[in-house]
Amino acid sequence: MKKKGGIKARNDVSELIQVMASLTSEHNLERLLKLIVQSALDITHSDAASLYLREKDQLRFVITSNKTLERRMGKKVFESTIKAFTVAISKKSISGFAAYTGKIVNIKDVYKIEGKPYSFNKTFDEINKYRSKSMLTVPLINREGGVVGVLQLINKLSNKNKLSTYKKYDEEITISLGAQAAVALENVQLQDDLLKAHYDSIMRLSAANEFRDNETGFHVQRVSFYCELLARAYGLEEEYVKNIKYASPLHDVGKIGIPDNILKKPGRLTEEEYEIMKQHTLIGGKILVNADNDIMRLAQELAVSHHEKWDGSGYPHTLKGENIPLSGRITAIADVFDALSNKRVYKPAFPLDKTFGIIEEQAGIHFDPQLAKVFISIKDQVADVFERLKDED
Amino acid sequence: MKKKGGIKARNDVSELIQVMASLTSEHNLERLLKLIVQSALDITHSDAASLYLREKDQLRFVITSNKTLERRMGKKVFESTIKAFTVAISKKSISGFAAYTGKIVNIKDVYKIEGKPYSFNKTFDEINKYRSKSMLTVPLINREGGVVGVLQLINKLSNKNKLSTYKKYDEEITISLGAQAAVALENVQLQDDLLKAHYDSIMRLSAANEFRDNETGFHVQRVSFYCELLARAYGLEEEYVKNIKYASPLHDVGKIGIPDNILKKPGRLTEEEYEIMKQHTLIGGKILVNADNDIMRLAQELAVSHHEKWDGSGYPHTLKGENIPLSGRITAIADVFDALSNKRVYKPAFPLDKTFGIIEEQAGIHFDPQLAKVFISIKDQVADVFERLKDED
Repeated sequence: MKKKGGIKARNDVSELIQVMASLTSEHNLERLLKLIVQSALDITHSDAASLYLREKDQLRFVITSNKTLERRMGKKVFESTIKAFTVAISKKSISGFAAYTGKIVNIKDVYKIEGKPYSFNKTFDEINKYRSKSMLTVPLINREGGVVGVLQLINKLSNKNKLSTYKKYDEEITISLGAQAAVALENVQLQDDLLKAHYDSIMRLSAANEFRDNETGFHVQRVSFYCELLARAYGLEEEYVKNIKYASPLHDVGKIGIPDNILKKPGRLTEEEYEIMKQHTLIGGKILVNADNDIMRLAQELAVSHHEKWDGSGYPHTLKGENIPLSGRITAIADVFDALSNKRVYKPAFPLDKTFGIIEEQAGIHFDPQLAKVFISIKDQVADVFERLKDED
Repeated sequence: MKKKGGIKARNDVSELIQVMASLTSEHNLERLLKLIVQSALDITHSDAASLYLREKDQLRFVITSNKTLERRMGKKVFESTIKAFTVAISKKSISGFAAYTGKIVNIKDVYKIEGKPYSFNKTFDEINKYRSKSMLTVPLINREGGVVGVLQLINKLSNKNKLSTYKKYDEEITISLGAQAAVALENVQLQDDLLKAHYDSIMRLSAANEFRDNETGFHVQRVSFYCELLARAYGLEEEYVKNIKYASPLHDVGKIGIPDNILKKPGRLTEEEYEIMKQHTLIGGKILVNADNDIMRLAQELAVSHHEKWDGSGYPHTLKGENIPLSGRITAIADVFDALSNKRVYKPAFPLDKTFGIIEEQAGIHFDPQLAKVFISIKDQVADVFERLKDED
């Protein structure tokens, strides 16, 4: 910093400080990875940067950016040529060495490495007609001293965009950036773990009803995925998509309040029994009432409303059209589709084509016609989930 | 930075950068608040610092540190004199002004404020015989531009520990620190919200069984809190304490698999029916099997083992003593205590004294003797939970 003179250094540092705050506030892993690489490129004035994440005793190459090649091929084309690969955490490769030793590796010319345990892999350069020269490789170290990944900067550029080499100053600034990146990555991981644990709990407890119910196996999982796919294809925001994915397994949670003699009855229900059975929507509403988080609020809404029909002939409130909450309209399609396409004690499994045909027929009668249309337009994705989560016979 | 000269600035900046990373990796709110205040004191060389958090249209004063007063009274005594208070977010107070306008307020002497909408409140100084002079008040602004709190620094000290004033440089460094603090606070809040939502889901779905079961109202909540209190008093790590708090409501989740005619039978179960009833432990184990998170793994363990007895006469595996998982031994005490101290269809509620008496009697027979002793030693805390979460009649 001293060498670079006051103003210049000051700009770099204030940029670094801004970047550090922005890394911390990014909660989406993919966007965070991009941000780390882009910030590293900008702050160090490099031509290229790559990021590896640790997976046990390997490094997985997850993202790269290369100004020269992106200019030459176009960003999209360049990105499409990149193949994922892994490197052992050992002294044999440069990134592996940084992860293995926890030390920064500063190389002036990767084609002139001598007397080192690691060597440079020229494959990328040869395929892409690129010439890597200077390289700064920094382990991303968390607060406990563990390596969570490696950041690799390639081809330092001077102020006049000439090839240069990485100085002590670049090392310092990249170490700071790397420390912050490590923490940010861990935070995102932690948050993802919490969300996954929550989803896992909802799934298990929703599936617990299967110990009483005739429905078996993967019903709640499939409904969850169908709702997710339909909500996304319908153009809803990603937050809503995630929330309905988490909430929809709970659509039948109220069945817990239905007595065995009705819930488990093999034959047709009498009028009176059917009225009791319908109560599962309202009981679900009671179980999930007054929640203070979005997932449970949505779960309550769809538990109550997933048996309403577009033409007003559903239950419990005989709501009509758009008066039915969107979550209920989405879940209705997912739930009926799953019931039809799988075996039940009272019916065989219908083939997928026939099932989609029924959804189409019922558009505007049972189902929101627009949602039904969108659901049919994503047939292939729906069929994928169906195949992947098939009930065992 | 320019003015302060290279080396000095460099140390400050590298300290700032280190602090920024450490703020981000602190996930406990209380420790984070302390860290923010302490870091602000250190980096700006101030005598005192306070932190306010935003609550709707108010600022809540949450923490303060004051070197002079801590030296004079001792840290503990000083902290005990501090009273929580709130300030309106308006132009009338200094912290309120910073939050209202989103602007930094730099005052040379708070006793000589003229021509400003805000004034200095002397109460603290008068009570503590302290003299506030220079003051730097910085709004903590998140990435969306919202004010999440206010950081207030008091009495800038020179290198020779003389009273000084805050310069442009202090403003810049405090703004950077504040931005990072805002993000860190939001991250902790987000994580707490996720955990709360998860707990809420577990509670609701555990309580859903009450729609079938004879047990009513707050049973699962109380068991959860009793397990938490007992685990903490027994000296277990806070992570385990939190996990058992979350996991224990699920101890009877397997009852979902018990038929109505047994679960809801008002009279005594026959030998055969009792054998089926006992299966709820193993069914719980199946519902919760193969989880990939700590809470659910613990829930599985205690669902299976909470009916084992210390002397080996329990079920399902007639385990003995320390062969019974700790979580099962803890939940056994909480569950039996709650069953005894509340009304059931087959028995009246026992008074708390009698209930504790039974726990004591059964130490070494039904219960782990050490855990039973600890549980009795926290009678008052247990009674608090009992009173707070009383079943309605």
